[in-house]
Amino acid sequence: MEEAKLKKIKGIAFDIDGVMTDGGILCMSDGDLLRIFDAKDSFAVRMAAMHGFRTAVITGGRSISIVKRCTGMGVPEDDVHLASRIKSKDLQKFCDKYGMDPSEVMYFGDDLPDIPVIKAVGLGVAPSDAVEEVRQAADFVSPYPGGKGCVRHAIEMVLRAQGQWTFDEALYEKQF
Amino acid sequence: MEEAKLKKIKGIAFDIDGVMTDGGILCMSDGDLLRIFDAKDSFAVRMAAMHGFRTAVITGGRSISIVKRCTGMGVPEDDVHLASRIKSKDLQKFCDKYGMDPSEVMYFGDDLPDIPVIKAVGLGVAPSDAVEEVRQAADFVSPYPGGKGCVRHAIEMVLRAQGQWTFDEALYEKQF
Amino acid sequence: MEEAKLKKIKGIAFDIDGVMTDGGILCMSDGDLLRIFDAKDSFAVRMAAMHGFRTAVITGGRSISIVKRCTGMGVPEDDVHLASRIKSKDLQKFCDKYGMDPSEVMYFGDDLPDIPVIKAVGLGVAPSDAVEEVRQAADFVSPYPGGKGCVRHAIEMVLRAQGQWTFDEALYEKQF
Amino acid sequence: MEEAKLKKIKGIAFDIDGVMTDGGILCMSDGDLLRIFDAKDSFAVRMAAMHGFRTAVITGGRSISIVKRCTGMGVPEDDVHLASRIKSKDLQKFCDKYGMDPSEVMYFGDDLPDIPVIKAVGLGVAPSDAVEEVRQAADFVSPYPGGKGCVRHAIEMVLRAQGQWTFDEALYEKQF
Repeated sequence: MEEAKLKKIKGIAFDIDGVMTDGGILCMSDGDLLRIFDAKDSFAVRMAAMHGFRTAVITGGRSISIVKRCTGMGVPEDDVHLASRIKSKDLQKFCDKYGMDPSEVMYFGDDLPDIPVIKAVGLGVAPSDAVEEVRQAADFVSPYPGGKGCVRHAIEMVLRAQGQWTFDEALYEKQF
Repeated sequence: MEEAKLKKIKGIAFDIDGVMTDGGILCMSDGDLLRIFDAKDSFAVRMAAMHGFRTAVITGGRSISIVKRCTGMGVPEDDVHLASRIKSKDLQKFCDKYGMDPSEVMYFGDDLPDIPVIKAVGLGVAPSDAVEEVRQAADFVSPYPGGKGCVRHAIEMVLRAQGQWTFDEALYEKQF
Repeated sequence: MEEAKLKKIKGIAFDIDGVMTDGGILCMSDGDLLRIFDAKDSFAVRMAAMHGFRTAVITGGRSISIVKRCTGMGVPEDDVHLASRIKSKDLQKFCDKYGMDPSEVMYFGDDLPDIPVIKAVGLGVAPSDAVEEVRQAADFVSPYPGGKGCVRHAIEMVLRAQGQWTFDEALYEKQF
Repeated sequence: MEEAKLKKIKGIAFDIDGVMTDGGILCMSDGDLLRIFDAKDSFAVRMAAMHGFRTAVITGGRSISIVKRCTGMGVPEDDVHLASRIKSKDLQKFCDKYGMDPSEVMYFGDDLPDIPVIKAVGLGVAPSDAVEEVRQAADFVSPYPGGKGCVRHAIEMVLRAQGQWTFDEALYEKQF
């Protein structure tokens, strides 16, 4: 990973299934689909938010539970894009809203619908268990799988490169 | 796997427990049984549906949550056979409905009740962790276990053999 | 495993947590505790029930969800002993009710409260991931862990030794 | 691990996510966050409580389900500290309440907010899959990961060092 790419990142966007989760989807009897998120990955998203990074979710999922969880990580509710089918459009909205160029964004994706975004951003990250096409398209293939360290590891890389992987208890208490 | 068998497939049917899941069944206090499905496996079923393959579920399970999830993958509600005890009868219904010969069907199963269907179809697939009797009866034993790649891998094999493993964002948006 | 011990078994009793599950307990907001059961293990219990074996549950758990799941596997509701603290007493009730000697019973357990029952029965089975004290006390340490093959494997051993590992679709349809 | 440290412990406190669980958090549609606890780890907490050790939870989590589960393990309801952001303050409350010095407490933690407590107590324990900073700060890095043996193993070490890893069925029935 080039240090220059890491230093340029201002925004962090991610898919949910297979990225923030191991791909498992629990189907309830009313059809709602629930996910299991990882505490350490979630903490990294909070660290990014606390240090002023813009964060967004771009997912094909539709469950309100995704919004509930991701706002709890510091992602603004308006930046959780559910039911995203043409994901590059939602990336563009995210960039436009915060005046960022796609080259300043890190995006995590694991399956075919993520490829246009992976290619558009400055730093496309694939979990170790992403499908082959995504691994090929990504700038960085994480040594960690989805839902178990991929998001934590790459966010740490970016924040460390920018000297921002520092934890402030008082700020944490105030924001979360 | 013979290329000829892959090219002949028009219909894809599957068991749920141990095939679309790792066999885990979450029991609720009202007795309803919920499952965890895999996002990448689910996406493959959608790809098959988008390319015109007929899809069906033949499961011993009874939970309405199975119907909810599988219709979300593009399986028509009428083709989700719950509480199936003589599974070969439900395979026959599926074939009759769409004018297919069993030799044109790929079926995924992992335990003893699946064996008659595995033997009847053109392409019987067992997850890597199917029981020994099913592994013996299957035309193809997947390198992947149930709920984690078996369905994705075999559907990809069929669609690729037929030149149909292509993802169309606009079509995806329209259908799902 | 001595063939003679396998042939003598008439009753099958089991603990739940760490035996029929991997030990994971999902805690709901009302305090109810839910478990994930394995489909292949469950099927083996049904096979035993279909062939006339007596089955029982002896668990420290209290959730009605355990009763719901285990009756679905063919265990009579009255033979699901919840909140069992002195487990050997519940084993005795099971034996008395069906006129069996403890030596004719196979019992699965994984932690300290199971040891008196493991020692009392003819065939005490420990999952591969049982605690060391239970592994020491058991007649047989399964090569499979709790919730993933231990119950299936040992029930198959008993039924095969007695020539009863045969699946009858029509009987299955009638009973389940 | 020095025997002297193990012998000195009177109180046991623990974080939840990544310690009593594997870090997985199931998000419900109302935003409640549920966890999967391990039966063998839970049993160890009960053993400690039965032998008179003081027990407490210090977690950033907010779900009432954590209180429900931990009181079921013998942790007094008032000693379950939810939404803890400055964790060392809650450790101090625990010590003050029971007249213990921090050097008499064992604490389990896995991520950055746990470090001040890990450093303050007599015996700071990190699961094998804790983040690197916590592993560095801990007195003991468990060979077992969070949610799968870490808590059981370390509690056993302490109770064995004090000659208290003994199971009394009658006492267990009375207390749980």
